[in-house]
Amino acid sequence: MRLRGRKGIRETIERQNDLVVMNPAEWKGRWAERFGNDKPIHVELGMGKGKFISEMSLVHPERNFIGVDMYDELIRRASDKARAAAGREDGGAPDNLALALFNIEHIEDVFAEGELRRIYLNFSDPWPKKKHARRRLTHAGFVEKYVRLLDSLGEIHFKTDSRSLFEFSLNSFADMNIRLRRISLDLHKDGPAPDNVMTEYEGKFFDAGMPIYRLEALIGQDALAEHRQSLDKEEEQ
Amino acid sequence: MRLRGRKGIRETIERQNDLVVMNPAEWKGRWAERFGNDKPIHVELGMGKGKFISEMSLVHPERNFIGVDMYDELIRRASDKARAAAGREDGGAPDNLALALFNIEHIEDVFAEGELRRIYLNFSDPWPKKKHARRRLTHAGFVEKYVRLLDSLGEIHFKTDSRSLFEFSLNSFADMNIRLRRISLDLHKDGPAPDNVMTEYEGKFFDAGMPIYRLEALIGQDALAEHRQSLDKEEEQ
Repeated sequence: MRLRGRKGIRETIERQNDLVVMNPAEWKGRWAERFGNDKPIHVELGMGKGKFISEMSLVHPERNFIGVDMYDELIRRASDKARAAAGREDGGAPDNLALALFNIEHIEDVFAEGELRRIYLNFSDPWPKKKHARRRLTHAGFVEKYVRLLDSLGEIHFKTDSRSLFEFSLNSFADMNIRLRRISLDLHKDGPAPDNVMTEYEGKFFDAGMPIYRLEALIGQDALAEHRQSLDKEEEQ
Repeated sequence: MRLRGRKGIRETIERQNDLVVMNPAEWKGRWAERFGNDKPIHVELGMGKGKFISEMSLVHPERNFIGVDMYDELIRRASDKARAAAGREDGGAPDNLALALFNIEHIEDVFAEGELRRIYLNFSDPWPKKKHARRRLTHAGFVEKYVRLLDSLGEIHFKTDSRSLFEFSLNSFADMNIRLRRISLDLHKDGPAPDNVMTEYEGKFFDAGMPIYRLEALIGQDALAEHRQSLDKEEEQ
C-alpha cells in the first residue's frame, strides 16, 4: 500500500512538467533557457512544503525561483501550494518558478558556475550531533560549492530557529573569511520583519514567541563592492 | 554625608599607588616601565568589581593586566578583591596588575599605539536605546580606537549576556571587516567553559541558566596570520 502511495505521488509530480523538474541535471548551465529569460535565479535549498518559494515568486516577478527538495511528497505539496498561490483559473503555476527534485549533495551536477544569483537556506536541518557536522548546509564543504555556483552579485540568505546551527554557521562563514551583514539574533523582535516572507516553520516559531536567527553572506565581488559603498555612504551622512 | 563618604573612598584608593593608577595618562607609552618588564599588556575595559581581572592576573603571571573603570568605588572594591586574591601576608597586590581610573572615552590619552596585546570587554553596558548606540563599547567609534592601540598580535575578547548588544557587535565587527572566531551563543551550554574566568555578572547568569554570548576579534596582522595557519592545519587533518 505504501509503495502504491509513493508511486501515485511520483506520477502526480511527473505529470507537472510546466513546474516540476524531475531530472534537473539536464538543465545545468541552461536554466535561463528553461525560464525563457535572463532574470537572476534565486534557489531555495530545502524548500519543505514550498510556502516561502511560492510567495517569493509572486512578490518578485523580476526574478526566477527554483525550489529544491529531495522528497517526492514535498515536491507534490509545494506544487499544490505554488498553483494555489498563483491563483489562476487554469491552475497554472507562476512562470518564474520551478520545483527541482534532487539531493543538495549533488548541487554541482544541477547548476553551472556563476549560474545563480542567490541561495536561500531556511530552517535547514541542524544535525546537532558533532559527527554529522558535514551534513549541515552551512558546513564549509557545502558553502564552497555555493561560492562556485553564485555569480558576481551572489549572496546566501540564511534563517533558522536553531541557536546551535546559527552559532555553527557564524563560525563557518567567519573561518571561510566570508563577509556577513544584517545579522539578527531575534529577527521579529519588533513584530514581523519587513520584506521578509515567512516559511511554515517560521510562522509557528513566530507565533510561539521564539527567536529567529538570520544573516546574509556576501559572496560575489560586486555584491561586496556594493555593500562597501553603501557603508561608506552611511558613514558620510 | 555622601560627599564625605566619597572623599573617604578617594583617599582610600589614592593611598594604593602600588596597585591603583589615579592619573593613568602619565604612563602613556611607558606602561612596560611601570610594570618593570615587557610582558604583553591585557586590559579589561569596565572591570566592575574586579573579579575577572584579579583572577586573570593570578592565572596568567606571564602577562600584565590593567583593569579600567571610571568610578572610585569600583576601583576601591577591585583593589580589595585583588589583594584578597593575591593572598599575601603583607596584603600586597599581584605584581602584574594595575587598576586604572579613567573614562574609556579617553583611552587614547592613556595608551600609545600598539601598546596593548588584548582588550577584554565583559558585560559592557548594552545602551539599548538607538540614540545611545555610540556609547556601546563595540561601536565602530570605540573599536577604531582599540585597533590603533593593539599590537600585531592584538585581539579583542568580548562576552555579554545581552542578546541585543551581541547582535549589534556582530554587525559592527562585520561592517568593519574584522575577522571573528570562537563565536558562541551559549558559552556554558555544556557546563562552565574551560579556560574561562567568570565575571561577577557571568556567575549569576550562569547560575540562572541564561546564555552568555562570546566572540574573539582578531585585530593584529600576526594574530590573523596565526589563525589562518591553525585553520589550514585543521583542514589538513
